[in-house]
Amino acid sequence: MKAIVFDKELKLDTNYPKPEPKTGEALIKVSLAGICNTDYEITKGYMGYVGVLGHEFVGVVEDVNSDKAEDKKWIGKRVVAEISWGCDEPDCEWCAKKNYRHCPNRHTLGIVAKDGCFAEYMTMPLNVLFEVPDNVADEQAVFVEPLAAACEISEQLHIEPMQKVVVLGDGKLGLTTALTLHAQNLDVLLIGKHQNKLDIAKAQGVETQLLQEFSPAPVYDVVVEATGTASGFETSMGLVKPRGVLVLKSTVATGKELNLAPIVINEITVLGSRCGQFPPALRLLKNNRIDFKPFISKIYSVDEALEAFEANKAKDTVKILIKF
Amino acid sequence: MKAIVFDKELKLDTNYPKPEPKTGEALIKVSLAGICNTDYEITKGYMGYVGVLGHEFVGVVEDVNSDKAEDKKWIGKRVVAEISWGCDEPDCEWCAKKNYRHCPNRHTLGIVAKDGCFAEYMTMPLNVLFEVPDNVADEQAVFVEPLAAACEISEQLHIEPMQKVVVLGDGKLGLTTALTLHAQNLDVLLIGKHQNKLDIAKAQGVETQLLQEFSPAPVYDVVVEATGTASGFETSMGLVKPRGVLVLKSTVATGKELNLAPIVINEITVLGSRCGQFPPALRLLKNNRIDFKPFISKIYSVDEALEAFEANKAKDTVKILIKF
Repeated sequence: MKAIVFDKELKLDTNYPKPEPKTGEALIKVSLAGICNTDYEITKGYMGYVGVLGHEFVGVVEDVNSDKAEDKKWIGKRVVAEISWGCDEPDCEWCAKKNYRHCPNRHTLGIVAKDGCFAEYMTMPLNVLFEVPDNVADEQAVFVEPLAAACEISEQLHIEPMQKVVVLGDGKLGLTTALTLHAQNLDVLLIGKHQNKLDIAKAQGVETQLLQEFSPAPVYDVVVEATGTASGFETSMGLVKPRGVLVLKSTVATGKELNLAPIVINEITVLGSRCGQFPPALRLLKNNRIDFKPFISKIYSVDEALEAFEANKAKDTVKILIKF
Repeated sequence: MKAIVFDKELKLDTNYPKPEPKTGEALIKVSLAGICNTDYEITKGYMGYVGVLGHEFVGVVEDVNSDKAEDKKWIGKRVVAEISWGCDEPDCEWCAKKNYRHCPNRHTLGIVAKDGCFAEYMTMPLNVLFEVPDNVADEQAVFVEPLAAACEISEQLHIEPMQKVVVLGDGKLGLTTALTLHAQNLDVLLIGKHQNKLDIAKAQGVETQLLQEFSPAPVYDVVVEATGTASGFETSMGLVKPRGVLVLKSTVATGKELNLAPIVINEITVLGSRCGQFPPALRLLKNNRIDFKPFISKIYSVDEALEAFEANKAKDTVKILIKF
């Protein structure tokens, strides 16, 4: 089968072995997948990962490796899947809470010890699958993973309705986060450098401002850093009120000296925030609360995979999808 | 009067003008004061402060500038004082909550816009004074400010009794923090490089371990970084459990590239923590829950001020006090 593989270099392998589902797993025919910046980071050596890339997808279950009737019901269903699953050992405190995202022995689709979704076929454990509601198109469903990551903030932090929130960064991460917080009826301002990207959020009701026209002041209860840069982190520290919260959404290494003294002086809480659970994200999609179509810069076919990765690097690109 | 002043250089001024209390202020004869690392940082340019140094003291009220009988009662009392006070304007949200520590227009003793306590006389607003309980000696009371800063953690964070806490750093900050958390009946391990310093905490019941003999693992619910170094911060990130809390107690700039990715990947909360309120600290002292005598490396007279600052730099020094 065709698969987009990273092994020292990024390549399209047209003869990659079709995976076989283990017990309790589904075989999924991938319909549509999305390129995430993490995929790009992996091609630069992040996590030392080698294998099929990709963790954002929507697909259809073709088969399941199970004799149970309830498992067989998945066949033919259109699905998405949470990307991490754990050891499920009885003494694992994370798996006991079904919080597979922090199991020290977890697999993570296309990132840790598990071939990803940039292939014609993939396998996934049934217990991380979610059926896509009928009214949600593939072009929306394929965004469920980054949308769940944005929903993660509300799992970690109680943001009160009168609090002021600012999101820094108008890439797909910042846009998704601002739209998600807005969809939760919070008071959100999105700051970015690109009017065309800000307009995607603005068209859906989010207040936006160009960084160039923004006067920074430490007046925000919650600041979400979504630029992935050291300077963005420093700007964020200057926007948080004393005792406020700086949500750190980016895993990019800073490569710059950082003075963390403002965190102590202003007693700021820096909250690391990563992947999230899918049900709240699917709920937002089902209720048409966010429209991801304007995010799609271009849809490439799998045969154009390398071109798609190149396009992902361009400054004005928001989201690149790959059709299988 | 004699005063220890920083103005481009550190000096003992034997002819500094005696301060006069403004309305609502007390004139205090300083008995004993402590050198904090912040004082040392100021002599290197921190906060751009110029004036009398010092913010840790115990003294006796000699006079008050007030006609109110209740204010006059302070005369003759042995006192300590919270070091920050605010604008007290009705529209200041911090002053309205008496949280002067975060008022943007605050004065901070010997740090921001207010002569400090390293002098024979000082003035302080009456509303930040606290009487020292009779059974608390000056040599204990002089530690109330750093002790309050250690108590601040329990104001910001609920640490559960079954959670594991580790404090990194055996300087006065780390020792005070470990002893304070221990005094709150928490499960604390103190890690440091100096057996003689660790022994101060160990003698009072705190579990301790030399860094050289410690096997780091991400198993702690709460990690307190009290080394003030970039490498200490990095070690701390590796000790926090996923979704755990890293309490940042040090204001030292890192001067080193920091990779903050572990904060995001493990969804760590970094909690900046600074000064604290005095009542819980005075309660610990009154109940003899911590003995600060073993912290005292040497007590210098004000005439030996420069020598005292030199001694403060030595690696095996814990606390230097100055008698006025």
